[in-house]
Amino acid sequence: MEFSLELIKSISRSSPTRIVLLVIDGLGGLPHSQTGKTELETANTPTLDQLAAKGICGLIDPVSPGITPGSAPGHLALFGYNPISFNIGRGVLEAVGIDFDLEPGDIAARGNFCTIDETGLVTDRRAGRISTQKCTELCRLLDGQVIDQAKLLVRPVKEHRLVVVFRGDKLVADISDSDPQQTGVSPQTVTAASPEAERMAGIANQFVAQAKMTLAEHYPANMVLLRGFSIRPHFPTMGEVFRLKPAAIASYPMYRGLAKLVGMEVLDTGTTIEAEFNTLKQNYTNYDFFFLHIKATDSAGEDGDFDRKVRVIEEVDNALPGLISMEPDVIVVSGDHSTPALLGGHSWHPVPFLLYSKWCRRDRVSEFSESACVSGGLGRFPATQVMSLAMANALKLNKFGA
Amino acid sequence: MEFSLELIKSISRSSPTRIVLLVIDGLGGLPHSQTGKTELETANTPTLDQLAAKGICGLIDPVSPGITPGSAPGHLALFGYNPISFNIGRGVLEAVGIDFDLEPGDIAARGNFCTIDETGLVTDRRAGRISTQKCTELCRLLDGQVIDQAKLLVRPVKEHRLVVVFRGDKLVADISDSDPQQTGVSPQTVTAASPEAERMAGIANQFVAQAKMTLAEHYPANMVLLRGFSIRPHFPTMGEVFRLKPAAIASYPMYRGLAKLVGMEVLDTGTTIEAEFNTLKQNYTNYDFFFLHIKATDSAGEDGDFDRKVRVIEEVDNALPGLISMEPDVIVVSGDHSTPALLGGHSWHPVPFLLYSKWCRRDRVSEFSESACVSGGLGRFPATQVMSLAMANALKLNKFGA
Repeated sequence: MEFSLELIKSISRSSPTRIVLLVIDGLGGLPHSQTGKTELETANTPTLDQLAAKGICGLIDPVSPGITPGSAPGHLALFGYNPISFNIGRGVLEAVGIDFDLEPGDIAARGNFCTIDETGLVTDRRAGRISTQKCTELCRLLDGQVIDQAKLLVRPVKEHRLVVVFRGDKLVADISDSDPQQTGVSPQTVTAASPEAERMAGIANQFVAQAKMTLAEHYPANMVLLRGFSIRPHFPTMGEVFRLKPAAIASYPMYRGLAKLVGMEVLDTGTTIEAEFNTLKQNYTNYDFFFLHIKATDSAGEDGDFDRKVRVIEEVDNALPGLISMEPDVIVVSGDHSTPALLGGHSWHPVPFLLYSKWCRRDRVSEFSESACVSGGLGRFPATQVMSLAMANALKLNKFGA
Repeated sequence: MEFSLELIKSISRSSPTRIVLLVIDGLGGLPHSQTGKTELETANTPTLDQLAAKGICGLIDPVSPGITPGSAPGHLALFGYNPISFNIGRGVLEAVGIDFDLEPGDIAARGNFCTIDETGLVTDRRAGRISTQKCTELCRLLDGQVIDQAKLLVRPVKEHRLVVVFRGDKLVADISDSDPQQTGVSPQTVTAASPEAERMAGIANQFVAQAKMTLAEHYPANMVLLRGFSIRPHFPTMGEVFRLKPAAIASYPMYRGLAKLVGMEVLDTGTTIEAEFNTLKQNYTNYDFFFLHIKATDSAGEDGDFDRKVRVIEEVDNALPGLISMEPDVIVVSGDHSTPALLGGHSWHPVPFLLYSKWCRRDRVSEFSESACVSGGLGRFPATQVMSLAMANALKLNKFGA
């Protein structure tokens, strides 16, 4: 176990207090050119502002200054796990996120159904975001093949997304992506980064070649792109490290998968923000830690839709009084990274952070925003310290040392 | 390669954007007793203030809080290299800075011609700053000796400064300085810190003894002081780590040497601030990273000359519009350490930092000063993170993790 986790484990204690970690995905933004205000600063958020006024604020760096985190590192850091030492592959995340039981030695890859033109160049990496139903049908066409003694299991995720699991003896995940991550070019040939991975690279390339033939008549989903080949790593659980009974509420599979990797129980929930907050209410007495994940902010940011991101933030703010009325001992509101609509993607900018508890030692910040959090009492700090702060404020940590 | 450099290397990408890192040596200061303002706060700096208003500010720690850095650690940190693991000797720096080609196994020492009185006590560590021409003549007198099978190569640097290179089999650099770093005392006997270094200590002491005899009639340069015995270390280059094509513009040899150690191309330039900015302009399209070094602020600080330091800062501010008009994608202005005129030397105080880019998420700071930077959006952070921040703002870093 990592030293920082060993340290927390050695002083954490179980107690009746409750922590809610509300992760507004891609929360941080950049100012609109006309108003000079970010998405969060533009949104009307009376409840978040009230929480900020009663609580203590700051800015967090998910990985370190300048580093743009993917979703996995951003969340692992919030859960207290060093995202550099626990760098897990995208394929494993997707597989765990759809309740796929990975067996030891299985290799998983994240897939996209995509569109290629007659010359083989990728024209749409998401095949026009086909329906989940269509995705399910196409996955059935590709599922169950055996290539070079490896069995292939192909499962739909959502819209154009799929998971491919390679099951067989002595497979090595150390291979490159076929997904070129851009349009106007051909899918890439998968290559082995080590001699032991040569066989696996060959299997992946054969799978892609056969998929191309099978999908030829299924425009716009006439090809598949694979990335993030990986084996499930071992994580000490949050129960073990923090002595918590943690639950996750997330509508999007990847975040459920991530929560499972660190030992959270994943609760059934709906796809709306309202449904997620209701799930929290219904399960409130059964757990002492809740990870509540809001995906729509990040999606709006990724789509470059400033106004939609503002509206989602306002919707979260509207739902908050219900959460506050349950009187959790600690409420943390932050994001796993910034996703400024102006950049249309994840970014390196530090993320606004607020913590409310009876013991937080409030600062002078009275508004939850990027600008205001600069002057917050917590300053700027690594996201890996969020869990110990939350635990401390829930009086769930013993003194360190005599 | 250090892990943090490996991480950056794994996500850095080449792009047409340009970064200018303007290092105002010894920038940070302390307030004048009469005005309560530091050198930077006293200087009239409309352009720096404008950049601060449009950009994002903070304070950097070159090594860590409380640690006063030498010039090498201060710069290495700014270039992204951990100055503690990459601790290089002063001798090597001076040698590289005068284009001396160190061979494997060579040991270099930085030297000062100095003045001693008739009892052997040092009265001026810089021999009245003799001319470079005089220094060159004296070096010729000392050059080329062979002591205990080691060949000695003695080269002038500038004014009273020289380099001594010891070339021979199995020389070990692990020896103490002869330079006492103060006046009123005798030069120190060089001692070995390990048994393997005994021979080298003996060679150094013999060299100093002979130099004393040779220089006896050359008052004020009637003695030599040596420090920083060291072997050239191996650095991964900035090209390798950051995928940059970096150039250095520096009038003072040590900074050119330092830039070469990390793989920058060193451009020919003049000795004035104007000449340096012109060199930037002439070479602007040929590189994507520029390290522009201003020495005169530090020299003024070291001389305890508050007003001169103020004037140099104003001169830099005057030259800045020319730089800005070339529209670099990222402009960073900071220092390698503080050199408060009140202390007359380097100090541990964190250094004002500003970064301007289209994507910086400006903060509320509207003035480039020590006091204002305290409230900057970047907070206080280690100088080793400057490069990743600059790279991120130039959109030269890929996302980390899925």
